[in-house]
Amino acid sequence: MRLAILAHEKFPDRAKTAVGLLRYTDHEVVAVLDRDHAGDHVADHVRDVQDAPIVAGIDDVPDIDAFVVGIAPIGGGFDETWRDDVRGALERGVEVWSGLHSFLEDDAEFAALAEEHDARLWDVRNPPDDLTVADGVARDLDATVVTTVGSDCSTGKMTATCELVEAARERGMSAGFVPTGQTGIMIEGWGLPIDRVVSDFTAGAVERMLVERAEEYDYLFVEGQGAITHPAYSAVTCGILHGSMPDALVYCHEANRGAVHGYESFSIPDVGEHASLYESLAEPVQPTSVVAGSLNTSKLDDTAAREAVEEFSTALDAPATDAVRYGCDEILDAL
Amino acid sequence: MRLAILAHEKFPDRAKTAVGLLRYTDHEVVAVLDRDHAGDHVADHVRDVQDAPIVAGIDDVPDIDAFVVGIAPIGGGFDETWRDDVRGALERGVEVWSGLHSFLEDDAEFAALAEEHDARLWDVRNPPDDLTVADGVARDLDATVVTTVGSDCSTGKMTATCELVEAARERGMSAGFVPTGQTGIMIEGWGLPIDRVVSDFTAGAVERMLVERAEEYDYLFVEGQGAITHPAYSAVTCGILHGSMPDALVYCHEANRGAVHGYESFSIPDVGEHASLYESLAEPVQPTSVVAGSLNTSKLDDTAAREAVEEFSTALDAPATDAVRYGCDEILDAL
Repeated sequence: MRLAILAHEKFPDRAKTAVGLLRYTDHEVVAVLDRDHAGDHVADHVRDVQDAPIVAGIDDVPDIDAFVVGIAPIGGGFDETWRDDVRGALERGVEVWSGLHSFLEDDAEFAALAEEHDARLWDVRNPPDDLTVADGVARDLDATVVTTVGSDCSTGKMTATCELVEAARERGMSAGFVPTGQTGIMIEGWGLPIDRVVSDFTAGAVERMLVERAEEYDYLFVEGQGAITHPAYSAVTCGILHGSMPDALVYCHEANRGAVHGYESFSIPDVGEHASLYESLAEPVQPTSVVAGSLNTSKLDDTAAREAVEEFSTALDAPATDAVRYGCDEILDAL
Repeated sequence: MRLAILAHEKFPDRAKTAVGLLRYTDHEVVAVLDRDHAGDHVADHVRDVQDAPIVAGIDDVPDIDAFVVGIAPIGGGFDETWRDDVRGALERGVEVWSGLHSFLEDDAEFAALAEEHDARLWDVRNPPDDLTVADGVARDLDATVVTTVGSDCSTGKMTATCELVEAARERGMSAGFVPTGQTGIMIEGWGLPIDRVVSDFTAGAVERMLVERAEEYDYLFVEGQGAITHPAYSAVTCGILHGSMPDALVYCHEANRGAVHGYESFSIPDVGEHASLYESLAEPVQPTSVVAGSLNTSKLDDTAAREAVEEFSTALDAPATDAVRYGCDEILDAL
């Protein structure tokens, strides 16, 4: 499929979904919409991802099969300055994907246009109605389940999971990605937005995905969310941990992050103690261990990055890497 | 208010909401509906609660102000054999309260009857639309927050919380109950059904209740849910733990329960280790400790019960009681 991705005024640093898609989707990105950078190319801003022209609006987008809202404002609502772009996409009859908290299908104009032009509206954060509580069966599956966990939100769990799946496949392993957030779901084309399911069904939703895919793959890599000690999001993390009943954990952290992002008065624990806490919390449900770590060193130069990875490995008492910068060999070897 | 409580074929042992209301509501229960026990009285089946006649159906119910669905079938749906009773209540123009997973207001006949007779349908498990993520502020509130936690579902957390509030008030303490489940919400007339909120908002919903009530009371007792190591429901428990940022925890357990109810292949951890795990999980967000325990000994004779409480106290390394059987002095003294 040919995609255009909306990222007005936020590309690339505040456009996590857009950059995630550019890096990991198998589809072709033919345009990024950012009125602040119209005329540039993606490659002018981000390395090691698909290149594409940056345009000002839908009228400058070539033929596409899907239009993606690739950013979210604070609060997760729809920004009215995007309306012309979404309207234009629907008038072309192409799919529109959105990871916003507020759903495009609840917008009367978009719903009407989608019906008129037979265009699919895909609100990826809208979970299905038939979710249930977990049966507690993930530990009985034949596939080896590996779940990424971490010290905070946005420490690189989705990225590390994507890198792990790619690297595992390069080694000839049968590896599947289990997406739990909007970017991962858009990359893979399926998945459940775990942070949006009813809290009673958190573990059950993860379990459902694993049961669905366990016969297809030998290894399933589950994208983690949040942190088990996050003051706001720990419920999501805990449900993923116990719902996935993983055989192994990969601990993700960002170099030099000492406080919880957006909750700066809360400190991030020592990573070794934190990793042990994940193990202690998992143990009564299904014993597992942190077998390796991935450190996001994107803000460091190479010398500092290598030192930071070494320190991180020591603190974790496990092999470590920066999955993006140095690859996943340490992690895959540890599995 | 005068209540009638529907509990067909399940009173009393499988009618947790009905029995909870009979024990703790300030309202007057004028009838329990159970076609299997029509003609009996509540007192024939349960001690130490309000007495009321048990009747076969709505036609035998005297004047009431509210009709309560006080049971839930497996799956939480509406049982069609109850339709005549709910219809009859709505035709009288009285409120109908329900804790079912499926909402009465989504039933076309009930919605129409409610409108026609100006009767309120209160689906207590239907959370409001405006919930948000936590701000992380519960630890800053002036009130002392006490949260009940436990080894499993149905170990007596709601009951212990109700008993604690009553006992605290008898001591002259300014104590409020923070309800997180359907029975507690019906008892108190307010609250948020934490297991039904979006998982991202779990901690935020608890925090909202605490913020609302913290100025009114010196002590807030938060009703816990599930267990931090429950294979299906741990997300809910974790959100309540971190959302409430409690000053103290009260650990609730049922004597002789060794496996997770409904998930019998999962063992319940040693209670001392389990209590420490709650503390370790809370610590990076807000340090707290298990100050006391309550053991449900309802299936034991008095000698065995006293021995079990003593053993439980030793395992927990904290004072313990059975809050229903022996009162709450040990717990309140420990606070």
